[in-house]
Amino acid sequence: MDFSNSERSNDYLAQLNQFMNEKVLPVEQSVLAANRALNPTGNWQEWRTLDEVEQLKKDAKAQGLWNLFLPDAQLGQGLTCSEYAPLAEATGKVIFAPEIFNCNAPDTGNMEVLYHFGSDAQKQQWLKPLLAGDIRSVFCMTEPEVASSDATNMEATIAADGDELVINGRKWWSTGLGHPNAKVAIVMGLSKPDAAKHERHSMALVPLDAPGVSIKRMLTAYGEYDAPYGHGEVTFTNVRVPTENLIWDLGKGFAIAQGRLGPGRIHHCMRAIGAAERALAMAIQRGLSRQAFGKPIIQLGGNTERIAQARIQIDQARLLTLNAAWKIDNFGVKNAMTEISAIKVAVPNMLQDVVDMAIQMHGGAGVSDDTPLASFTAMARILRIADGPDEVHRHMVSRLEIAKHLKGKAS
Amino acid sequence: MDFSNSERSNDYLAQLNQFMNEKVLPVEQSVLAANRALNPTGNWQEWRTLDEVEQLKKDAKAQGLWNLFLPDAQLGQGLTCSEYAPLAEATGKVIFAPEIFNCNAPDTGNMEVLYHFGSDAQKQQWLKPLLAGDIRSVFCMTEPEVASSDATNMEATIAADGDELVINGRKWWSTGLGHPNAKVAIVMGLSKPDAAKHERHSMALVPLDAPGVSIKRMLTAYGEYDAPYGHGEVTFTNVRVPTENLIWDLGKGFAIAQGRLGPGRIHHCMRAIGAAERALAMAIQRGLSRQAFGKPIIQLGGNTERIAQARIQIDQARLLTLNAAWKIDNFGVKNAMTEISAIKVAVPNMLQDVVDMAIQMHGGAGVSDDTPLASFTAMARILRIADGPDEVHRHMVSRLEIAKHLKGKAS
Amino acid sequence: MDFSNSERSNDYLAQLNQFMNEKVLPVEQSVLAANRALNPTGNWQEWRTLDEVEQLKKDAKAQGLWNLFLPDAQLGQGLTCSEYAPLAEATGKVIFAPEIFNCNAPDTGNMEVLYHFGSDAQKQQWLKPLLAGDIRSVFCMTEPEVASSDATNMEATIAADGDELVINGRKWWSTGLGHPNAKVAIVMGLSKPDAAKHERHSMALVPLDAPGVSIKRMLTAYGEYDAPYGHGEVTFTNVRVPTENLIWDLGKGFAIAQGRLGPGRIHHCMRAIGAAERALAMAIQRGLSRQAFGKPIIQLGGNTERIAQARIQIDQARLLTLNAAWKIDNFGVKNAMTEISAIKVAVPNMLQDVVDMAIQMHGGAGVSDDTPLASFTAMARILRIADGPDEVHRHMVSRLEIAKHLKGKAS
Amino acid sequence: MDFSNSERSNDYLAQLNQFMNEKVLPVEQSVLAANRALNPTGNWQEWRTLDEVEQLKKDAKAQGLWNLFLPDAQLGQGLTCSEYAPLAEATGKVIFAPEIFNCNAPDTGNMEVLYHFGSDAQKQQWLKPLLAGDIRSVFCMTEPEVASSDATNMEATIAADGDELVINGRKWWSTGLGHPNAKVAIVMGLSKPDAAKHERHSMALVPLDAPGVSIKRMLTAYGEYDAPYGHGEVTFTNVRVPTENLIWDLGKGFAIAQGRLGPGRIHHCMRAIGAAERALAMAIQRGLSRQAFGKPIIQLGGNTERIAQARIQIDQARLLTLNAAWKIDNFGVKNAMTEISAIKVAVPNMLQDVVDMAIQMHGGAGVSDDTPLASFTAMARILRIADGPDEVHRHMVSRLEIAKHLKGKAS
Repeated sequence: MDFSNSERSNDYLAQLNQFMNEKVLPVEQSVLAANRALNPTGNWQEWRTLDEVEQLKKDAKAQGLWNLFLPDAQLGQGLTCSEYAPLAEATGKVIFAPEIFNCNAPDTGNMEVLYHFGSDAQKQQWLKPLLAGDIRSVFCMTEPEVASSDATNMEATIAADGDELVINGRKWWSTGLGHPNAKVAIVMGLSKPDAAKHERHSMALVPLDAPGVSIKRMLTAYGEYDAPYGHGEVTFTNVRVPTENLIWDLGKGFAIAQGRLGPGRIHHCMRAIGAAERALAMAIQRGLSRQAFGKPIIQLGGNTERIAQARIQIDQARLLTLNAAWKIDNFGVKNAMTEISAIKVAVPNMLQDVVDMAIQMHGGAGVSDDTPLASFTAMARILRIADGPDEVHRHMVSRLEIAKHLKGKAS
Repeated sequence: MDFSNSERSNDYLAQLNQFMNEKVLPVEQSVLAANRALNPTGNWQEWRTLDEVEQLKKDAKAQGLWNLFLPDAQLGQGLTCSEYAPLAEATGKVIFAPEIFNCNAPDTGNMEVLYHFGSDAQKQQWLKPLLAGDIRSVFCMTEPEVASSDATNMEATIAADGDELVINGRKWWSTGLGHPNAKVAIVMGLSKPDAAKHERHSMALVPLDAPGVSIKRMLTAYGEYDAPYGHGEVTFTNVRVPTENLIWDLGKGFAIAQGRLGPGRIHHCMRAIGAAERALAMAIQRGLSRQAFGKPIIQLGGNTERIAQARIQIDQARLLTLNAAWKIDNFGVKNAMTEISAIKVAVPNMLQDVVDMAIQMHGGAGVSDDTPLASFTAMARILRIADGPDEVHRHMVSRLEIAKHLKGKAS
Repeated sequence: MDFSNSERSNDYLAQLNQFMNEKVLPVEQSVLAANRALNPTGNWQEWRTLDEVEQLKKDAKAQGLWNLFLPDAQLGQGLTCSEYAPLAEATGKVIFAPEIFNCNAPDTGNMEVLYHFGSDAQKQQWLKPLLAGDIRSVFCMTEPEVASSDATNMEATIAADGDELVINGRKWWSTGLGHPNAKVAIVMGLSKPDAAKHERHSMALVPLDAPGVSIKRMLTAYGEYDAPYGHGEVTFTNVRVPTENLIWDLGKGFAIAQGRLGPGRIHHCMRAIGAAERALAMAIQRGLSRQAFGKPIIQLGGNTERIAQARIQIDQARLLTLNAAWKIDNFGVKNAMTEISAIKVAVPNMLQDVVDMAIQMHGGAGVSDDTPLASFTAMARILRIADGPDEVHRHMVSRLEIAKHLKGKAS
Repeated sequence: MDFSNSERSNDYLAQLNQFMNEKVLPVEQSVLAANRALNPTGNWQEWRTLDEVEQLKKDAKAQGLWNLFLPDAQLGQGLTCSEYAPLAEATGKVIFAPEIFNCNAPDTGNMEVLYHFGSDAQKQQWLKPLLAGDIRSVFCMTEPEVASSDATNMEATIAADGDELVINGRKWWSTGLGHPNAKVAIVMGLSKPDAAKHERHSMALVPLDAPGVSIKRMLTAYGEYDAPYGHGEVTFTNVRVPTENLIWDLGKGFAIAQGRLGPGRIHHCMRAIGAAERALAMAIQRGLSRQAFGKPIIQLGGNTERIAQARIQIDQARLLTLNAAWKIDNFGVKNAMTEISAIKVAVPNMLQDVVDMAIQMHGGAGVSDDTPLASFTAMARILRIADGPDEVHRHMVSRLEIAKHLKGKAS
């Protein structure tokens, strides 16, 4: 048993923390303000990137703090999932930081899909510029008209028609769809309605400038458009792409999704843990700096108990996530299903609790744009829905747990 | 013991519900969208009222659904606090509805202050147009530089200088400050630093166009500016107003605040209960209308238990609030301190829980502007801070509870 | 709206509180110790009543503090359910106090059944001595072999055979079965297996000395036998009683149960609220009397917040229960189904929380027999199971709540 | 990073699980019943050991499943704290199992004290027979008259008088004091009232047959005497023992306690995790075996969500504890203070939650002696008080957390 991080990971972590402290945290508020000012009505057509952020990306790339998430040693830095985990945590302290290191969702997941399941041509065309950070991508799964918690409800279609695929449907919560550099979407849709439940859907690459792709609007999440990324609603009307744009094969959508989601959840959760650490630190600093009733407010009532509780919850969440990462590394995603669903439930709920406490310690400042805490609240709340709501993941955990007893296994 | 509402209150309630159902709910989304589009960067100078809302106000006024909160039978409708409570609940279902009936914060509280403590001249100049709905007002208490949970921390000053008052200081979270019709602020500040702790502060009426009043910005609450009302930050620099603008007397700030806050908390809490009822109804309707895994989602997992829990929590919160209102009506604010602080803790936390559940039932739609749920979340979260955070009110409740035993009273 | 208690109820309450303070609380620990020492191995055959308790019963009866629960003015004191509620609360402060006033379960519920549904002969034979406190009774519903949360699972049978009823089956958790004065059981069993689901079962009066009735053992609840009452397991083997012992009619079991349970839940819940008040008062007194780290422990960490939270939870629970009682009084049990199930969930959970807090404030003393807190824990925990577990009552509340929307009613 | 158990630990675990499954679980109910029947009035003088348990001890010893907790390879099995942890978990599934492997509290802690701080003579006289399982020991720390949460409150005295120590005071919750084989107590008391706060107290070995030692009574915990071990109250009146009985030195009490408590908390917590796993497995099996409303009850309402939540909470608790054990192994107790206090809070609370859920799934059986669940409840509840209540450990965690910021360290 060894809970220590590898030397290699620790080296990256030291560099990353220095980069975060020296270059990212000092500009956090100005970047967030600039992003919010971009076009707050959700007119994504006018959104643009910030030079400040572009320069940070160049700096990070030059320093080798780039594509850290990708286990491949040539294309990424060759870190395992559990080695990358502490780095993901470090980037989670600032909402927009992951992109600086080309480690942001949904590009990371999309790159993993292309890396594992893409053809050489797909890799050349899309993976290469994504790895370079030259373009961005979108993942189109959730639909407005059905309960997406049951992914088999998905109604969009991907039909083979000669040497083309025809895509029809409406998607929303497609994160990053508003970004000026977003060039391609991985779209999931129904192809073989008569196949077994999890063999009906496919994934295809759809350039965003293909005829029939129509971005309808950007959605707000707790009042924020998250410019210049955005969460978009988009329709596909008889969109035709060559069959070469099919990933893996018809009916492989869920198989691809499963592979994609394992490491992706580690990343999301570790970033959420980073956000929680940030919120806890802010709570303490605020609690020490303000006085009420003759004492620093951190000393009042149950505040110290809540600080302790936050520390305990964060540490539990981190260990659960690291253990899941280690299981993925050593036994594969299929043997870590309980762990992956467990963190999907536990970590965002933990973040929601910790941020709520931190906001309470800040008073009004906590819900305003003067701190990143309101954004962390939105992040936590959305993570409890996105990529399977709490309820679906609890169901998965219980199903596997109960199955142990149905098979007659002892506990 | 009689838990039924008075006939008079029930009559108003029936009218109010009809008005809400026929006139307000149908335009809810369009009004909210129009308000958000006003100027989402927080440039309050460009905010304006909506004709649609102005017309609704006229209709309500014509129908006598106006100033329902004011116990005075001439100036208001002569309803007691507990008679008004169910009406406040009904208006809470739509964020902007209270204003339509001239029952919105902070104007209600400010009108009560003027009604109970204002001079005839003050009433003529300010109460009259407020009751008519012709102008709006602001309450300036919270300050950015100190922990406002301890109101005695307040650093703004109101100094008597000859026949003038001189006001200096910085305030924030002054709700409604951005509204084009906001004309006057009730400002609280330190006047007698050497007096007893709760006899040091005063309240004064300050016209917003007085020289030295400078609105700095509008704050966001969870990303929303709440146009055309806004939550403002404002400085007062050597602002001079005639001594006639002093309310009651120097050093009476806390005495006035106490009288103001009792009924105000009933109003806030009842509106929050209305919002919770709305969220619960929306959760059920959504849960019945969407299918997953072969069932309406409301039938899945713990959803029905959560529906029940919401019903139980809401009913408990309402009863606690009605009981507090009844105590205020029959024994006065001073004899209802436990009850008033108890609802201030219990109700917003209840709303936060219920809305969280409703959002989870809605998935992504729940956090977007497509539903009012995200706004209800913000409302709940801010109510846990505004007007004394949870912790301060729990402290008050415990202090009174422990005092029973210190005096040797039996429990 | 009027939250005050009636004068009549207040008069009884004053007398009852005086009786409790002067006569019951002083002997609480000695009576509990004597009961525990009776025969702690569960050999109920050797259990006996305590002279001390018998004398208290005589005193209470002489003073008219007797059968307070019964709405009949001749047989009881003619108090409504909501008038009796505060009295039930007062008796809940001491585990064995309700019996002193002949207001203990299950006798109260059994007397109500006989009062409402019993024949004249049944009333003469059983109700009269029960009202006099001369005998005690048992209610046999729960069965060990099935999930009793679904009462239709019940497997015991009550079969009509000529002018006799034949009873077969096994029951457990029959409270009071071990008491030397327990003379009769109301037994519920299946009579008409082919009737509609809730018209299959009957209730019959079975003398405990009838041939074929065999008490198997007393069960412990958290290690306690609750001598001299006990929670028994009992078998009925071809027990024959005359048809006159049938209550109301064959197939009326659920109809009777529903009528029985409404007021019974008010009683249980109000007693639980009394226990919670006691626990809160004890927590405060302990917290004030012990020092740690230089302060009374009540001033440490989150203790005052927990005191406040307990006060708020208790007050909410009481109001919810009084409202349910008022609904029963004014609209009948059938129109108070949500309220009755709501309190069944909310109140025992509240008691469990409050007692947990009080124990924590007491340290080791809290879990020992030196305080009544461990017994209150057991009481709370069992109430969450007995007479329908939390889950069944949440289901009832949600079913009624969802039904409002299925019928197309607006919220 | 490596979350796997060592081969050596896994080997022991396989043996231990087999022993538990084949020899301990089958006799669990009969042993518990026999213990309860010993003398349920708390007359510990009549308590005796069970031949059945004595034989199991011999079997375990013969098989080398003995003193597994002791890191010393000669005296124990040479397992590190983190290697022993999974074994402690396995023994936690049955309340009385730890003793079978000579791994029960408080003997393990006392043996560790003697191992680390005892003189050769003390080891010869006391450690040797304890390691052999021939005698048992007691730890006397908690006192009835003071808030023991602040250990510096301790009022018992250990005074040096020539070549003797004189011990005076009253202790309670001395676990195991009623056991017929209990021969010696480690007593903690005040020696140097004027020294620094944590250098005032000493620990001494006091034979239980020394003149002046008087056992007053056994305490119940939730109605249970825990025969034949017991939780005793004992007075020391001018008890004189030779100075050789002093452990380490005068004033070293807290230094010894700190060393003792680190591994001891790992043991306690891992046993609690074993109990939680047992409760979870029982809940599932019960939930699968009972039907209500046409389904296995595990499929009703929120039951599957609660099963999932239990799995998640248990896994988080285990990882937190294993991480703490690993920190102790690799960095020492002093560098694992946050972790050790964190598990002390998190694990018993987790057990309390999981057992509460399991009881609810069992209905009445869950609170009776028919299952071990009521005992697990008592175990969890007491662990939240014993050895520092939740509040004290949360305070420790928050103090260390806040200190990071006071020193100016970044988070």
